[in-house]
Amino acid sequence: MGMEKGFSGKNILITGGLGCIGSNLAIRLVEAGAKVTLLDAMIPGLGGNAFNIDPIKDDVCVNFSDIRDENSIKHVVRDKEYIFHLAGQNDHTLSLTNPFPDIDINIKGSLVLLEACKNFNRQAKVIYTGTRGEYGSAVKLPVREDAPLYPKGIYELSSLTAQKLFKIYHDNHGIRTITLRLTNIYGERAQMQHHRFGVANWFIRLAIDRETIKVFGDGSILRDFLYVQDTVDAIMMAALREEAYGEVFNVGVDKPICFLDLVKTIIDLAGGGNWEFAPFTPERAVQEPGDFYSDISKARAVIGWEPKTGIREGIAGTIDYYRKNKTYYW
Amino acid sequence: MGMEKGFSGKNILITGGLGCIGSNLAIRLVEAGAKVTLLDAMIPGLGGNAFNIDPIKDDVCVNFSDIRDENSIKHVVRDKEYIFHLAGQNDHTLSLTNPFPDIDINIKGSLVLLEACKNFNRQAKVIYTGTRGEYGSAVKLPVREDAPLYPKGIYELSSLTAQKLFKIYHDNHGIRTITLRLTNIYGERAQMQHHRFGVANWFIRLAIDRETIKVFGDGSILRDFLYVQDTVDAIMMAALREEAYGEVFNVGVDKPICFLDLVKTIIDLAGGGNWEFAPFTPERAVQEPGDFYSDISKARAVIGWEPKTGIREGIAGTIDYYRKNKTYYW
Repeated sequence: MGMEKGFSGKNILITGGLGCIGSNLAIRLVEAGAKVTLLDAMIPGLGGNAFNIDPIKDDVCVNFSDIRDENSIKHVVRDKEYIFHLAGQNDHTLSLTNPFPDIDINIKGSLVLLEACKNFNRQAKVIYTGTRGEYGSAVKLPVREDAPLYPKGIYELSSLTAQKLFKIYHDNHGIRTITLRLTNIYGERAQMQHHRFGVANWFIRLAIDRETIKVFGDGSILRDFLYVQDTVDAIMMAALREEAYGEVFNVGVDKPICFLDLVKTIIDLAGGGNWEFAPFTPERAVQEPGDFYSDISKARAVIGWEPKTGIREGIAGTIDYYRKNKTYYW
Repeated sequence: MGMEKGFSGKNILITGGLGCIGSNLAIRLVEAGAKVTLLDAMIPGLGGNAFNIDPIKDDVCVNFSDIRDENSIKHVVRDKEYIFHLAGQNDHTLSLTNPFPDIDINIKGSLVLLEACKNFNRQAKVIYTGTRGEYGSAVKLPVREDAPLYPKGIYELSSLTAQKLFKIYHDNHGIRTITLRLTNIYGERAQMQHHRFGVANWFIRLAIDRETIKVFGDGSILRDFLYVQDTVDAIMMAALREEAYGEVFNVGVDKPICFLDLVKTIIDLAGGGNWEFAPFTPERAVQEPGDFYSDISKARAVIGWEPKTGIREGIAGTIDYYRKNKTYYW
């Protein structure tokens, strides 16, 4: 794509750079000729994986540190033209037992980054990826960016608070920021060791292992699942679009699929596995927003982005990746 | 008032209990026959003042500790039937130089309290006082509770995040919580040493001292100023109303006054002082939401509350209090 030339020779920081989206983004940016620094705290369970950057390990600088480490962050932000803030605590149900990491990592961590930009790099263009969970239950489908914001859990609330921090620093301090509200993402380089986030990838693991996939409820809940390479497209295209700064964009798919059909598609493409209905666990039931899919007309109009990968194609690519590289993820 | 009998003999905790609203609330609850514990961290500049509770100092238990102190909070919440959470960092412009106290005290502090209730006192009824700043600029006047929420600064955002924490604990953990979004409060027992919060009280100090009050801009911005005793009424009445739990209520005045008229009224009632126009300071300009006054029809309907004190009466009472007790506040 011609778009990627915009990053040639640019100094770029990706926080959470060894995670799923961060590493896929890093690979694309290195291909585009960017000078890429990755920051990752490697907190167990949050998705950081050294193998994720194997194809570019000699082409990037990896800074192992934590987004909450003010002294570290005030140095790594300097001289960066683009900063992609993907580091975060993503476990949707952790807050039911320990809510403090959501506040510390997602809110305070975002604030440490923004303060570092304010004090040491006001020219940086900063792209933050939040979650569609900021909306909570959909009042109207598909969900637009101006829909009411009633997050159902503390992880989702921490993302909303971070989004508003990025907006406040844009308006009050002139730091150019964009927030993308990502829907359910799946694809290569996501963690596969637990089911606490990344439900589509977890189903893919079970199908590869010929295990039984539990479909909660009657499987009819609609959701939009977005392939990670399409997500990376959205992130890169937004960053290059001046009109996108100060704004929030949904990054999702306006053609939803129900959970049961997703599972059947995965089992079909994996050539095995099976499924059964199961009741929602109590902790999932209390935070389950029901049917959700994104209105992406704003991203289409302003960024010029839309998803290109069909669900079958994306799942097939994902299965292929993990079959080849299972040893690094299981 | 008959309403106050509802608190007779009840165990009650007030966080921020030595501050303006906390101490006025404590005095009323002691009069009503409640057993009151006050928690205050006495952080300099945030409003805690030992003299505030002089009339009840032998009738209350004061626990000097910080809302962020998990070990302290998990003990003070036990056996309390009502918990009024008023502790907070209230400086609207501090975040422009140091944004971390907003996150630590207002968000994490609220979370420490909610976790303590979840783990040690699920029966507690918890009333949180947030700010009308959660709305940001009014899209439509008067502002209803379902208006868009676009806080213009981090203090205001921290209040919004706390409000949503209280709602999430209500919905997910069965902790009964109410949020009141308070407008500009004035009255006796507010701090008078700086102008970083409590603009009406600051004007009153200047008039008492025969100094010049600076009216920003052309003085035409509308705001609803609520007397602290009316605020205490709202807090107490909400706590006693079962239907109020899980809800958010504006607590303000639907008859606004412009800043210039407020200042002229204060000077008139103080019998001295003077005023002049001044440009907004940059840090105030960037976070100034413009005209704002509250739609209080929900509080009227559900809680049965409305303000009873006219602006002249409230200001006269406030001036009288500080003339008598100046030595403890200046």
